[in-house]
Amino acid sequence: MSNFESAIPNELSWLYRGISEIFPNQADSQDANENLVQRLRKTDRPLRVKLGIDPTGADIHLGHSIPVRKLRAFQDAGHTAVLIIGDFTARIGDPTGKSDVRRQLSVDEVKYNAQTYLDQVRPILDFETPGRLEIRYNSEWLEPLGLAKILELLATMTVGQMLAKEGFAERYKQENPIYLHEFLYPLMQGYDSVAVQADVELGGTDQKFNIAVGRDLQRHFGQTPQFGLLTPILIGTDGVQKMSKSLNNYVGLRDEPLTMYQKLEGTKDNQVDSYFELLTDLALDELPTNPRDRQQLLAWTIVSHYHGKKAADEAKQGGAIPEFSLAAVTFPAKLFYILNASGLCESSGEARRQIQNGGVKLEGDRISTVDLTFDSPDSLNGKVLQVGKKKFVRLVP
Amino acid sequence: MSNFESAIPNELSWLYRGISEIFPNQADSQDANENLVQRLRKTDRPLRVKLGIDPTGADIHLGHSIPVRKLRAFQDAGHTAVLIIGDFTARIGDPTGKSDVRRQLSVDEVKYNAQTYLDQVRPILDFETPGRLEIRYNSEWLEPLGLAKILELLATMTVGQMLAKEGFAERYKQENPIYLHEFLYPLMQGYDSVAVQADVELGGTDQKFNIAVGRDLQRHFGQTPQFGLLTPILIGTDGVQKMSKSLNNYVGLRDEPLTMYQKLEGTKDNQVDSYFELLTDLALDELPTNPRDRQQLLAWTIVSHYHGKKAADEAKQGGAIPEFSLAAVTFPAKLFYILNASGLCESSGEARRQIQNGGVKLEGDRISTVDLTFDSPDSLNGKVLQVGKKKFVRLVP
Repeated sequence: MSNFESAIPNELSWLYRGISEIFPNQADSQDANENLVQRLRKTDRPLRVKLGIDPTGADIHLGHSIPVRKLRAFQDAGHTAVLIIGDFTARIGDPTGKSDVRRQLSVDEVKYNAQTYLDQVRPILDFETPGRLEIRYNSEWLEPLGLAKILELLATMTVGQMLAKEGFAERYKQENPIYLHEFLYPLMQGYDSVAVQADVELGGTDQKFNIAVGRDLQRHFGQTPQFGLLTPILIGTDGVQKMSKSLNNYVGLRDEPLTMYQKLEGTKDNQVDSYFELLTDLALDELPTNPRDRQQLLAWTIVSHYHGKKAADEAKQGGAIPEFSLAAVTFPAKLFYILNASGLCESSGEARRQIQNGGVKLEGDRISTVDLTFDSPDSLNGKVLQVGKKKFVRLVP
Repeated sequence: MSNFESAIPNELSWLYRGISEIFPNQADSQDANENLVQRLRKTDRPLRVKLGIDPTGADIHLGHSIPVRKLRAFQDAGHTAVLIIGDFTARIGDPTGKSDVRRQLSVDEVKYNAQTYLDQVRPILDFETPGRLEIRYNSEWLEPLGLAKILELLATMTVGQMLAKEGFAERYKQENPIYLHEFLYPLMQGYDSVAVQADVELGGTDQKFNIAVGRDLQRHFGQTPQFGLLTPILIGTDGVQKMSKSLNNYVGLRDEPLTMYQKLEGTKDNQVDSYFELLTDLALDELPTNPRDRQQLLAWTIVSHYHGKKAADEAKQGGAIPEFSLAAVTFPAKLFYILNASGLCESSGEARRQIQNGGVKLEGDRISTVDLTFDSPDSLNGKVLQVGKKKFVRLVP
């Protein structure tokens, strides 16, 4: 019937794998506006699948990769990934100056950060196949927006609806100030959907409100409203809290192969299943049963995805890296002394130079304080100390 | 000391006459930012005194004239009246389409309405003296406003501050929807003050919030905040309710001399003092004591202001206009029959033509329904029926 139908697999497991919610979700409806599966089956053109990102320049971790992987799944099914770089929003920052997260960025910073982001997601997305990726900057349509149109956007919502949004509701109740411009951000994100005529928008579960605003605005402007597809929040390597750089329970997409492998090899038992589901394409009913084998397969699969099979194999071997006992060190001790004593550097002088030149990492984090001193071995035990790409020791008591 | 000081009369009774409030009002402060009298005394340039008007095309009545008269008083003291025509706001209207008051107007309608307004206030303001009047259209600065600047405006206020505004507070409490764009209107009005660098803004007592928003925005943009000068709301000719066209207790600036005179001659005793104070320049301690004399002086003074002394004299004579007794008419009765029976028209045919051509007024309101029928004399008794400019009768029982 439709040209496109052949491209849609009967099996839609790729769509449903590891998601939290699709909305609207009238699963039994034949109406393609209420049922995403029907839309996928009936469409005669690639759907436009939107994912918005803030070019804040942060390292991306595996938690962030989840909606990007889902975007890839849509690409593989023949659809168009529309990646929206929120450059306009980033350049404005937070006009109150109260938020560090939203500090104003220059045009050059935004450009650099966007490139950094694209570099990191390059292993995930299909950048090659024609028509599968569209990269858009939202300044294209937000910059020329005038007061009349902005009033029109604002007029689509009431104060009550906005204050019902999670986050706003609590702040209002607790009498914490909500600045008026904050009400515009969901509308700006929603207007992005209008501008790119999105059929589907991907996001974490915390994006439900904003995606719903996009639906309302599309309806207002005479478009068919997009579907929202929400992906879960990933638990970090501690097995307890949301993966986050500030909690140091994260695996960065730019982590060195060995670091990445070692972090993932230690994935907590309660998270291994979910990591397989959310971060790999492996069939979940064909996984090894032995817990250690499962952790190693997980680590190898993800490392090979971001760094290739050779690096993954090496990292797996590297699991047996030499140990250095801190019992031989008198604390407090300078880092450069430990580098020398452990044999990673031939002298304290070389150790200092290596630190200075950015060649030294502790558990994957670069250390650049030449005179860094440790008062006791407590914060070092069990960690990997590394010089350059090839020299490692594991610090043990 | 300052060039301008000589233009400020020692006596500032013109400033204080008939106002509700000046804010800020640190009356004992020597700081010209806190005390308007000090500002007037110390300024070395004409102050910029803002009054904003909506070009909705409505007839202006004496209630509206109060802040315009105060604007004239500032002109006479050497200052610059800055009349802001809200053309941008009028052209947008209410994007929800829910408000009749804010229906969208075309550019031509706005232009026509603005001219209509200016025609009506011409007898009040000084249009002649160079430098005393500046007419500005707010599309000049609102049209080019981009999203970045609008976010900046919005970020100066919190939801809590906005919901504290009279009107919003009750609606929110009663769970009546408040649309988000409504929050922008006070900020747009406030930004007008920034754009014209207002030193003083005039308005009715219901404008206090908006004028205060203007102060905040001026401070935000590094300007000295304006003073707010609030004028009272005028009670209508019924002596009870706010003057308003819809309550039919108003005196329009375009009322014919006789109509205007007769309405004002009937000013209720409890309002005569306040009408003298707010609508004339007469010294309040030199008014006649006899109530009838006071009413006549009030009517004559105001009519002569808008129509000239000759018209006022004639209107005063016209008070003794011929009477026609409705006892001679059988009800229900057609209007054209009454016009003929009373002698205002020579035949029913002429009467019909006069109605058709717009030449017939009842108590000042033009009547254009040729077949208008009155069931009883009740709604006619005491009213003046008029054909053309010169033929009148008062209808009596």
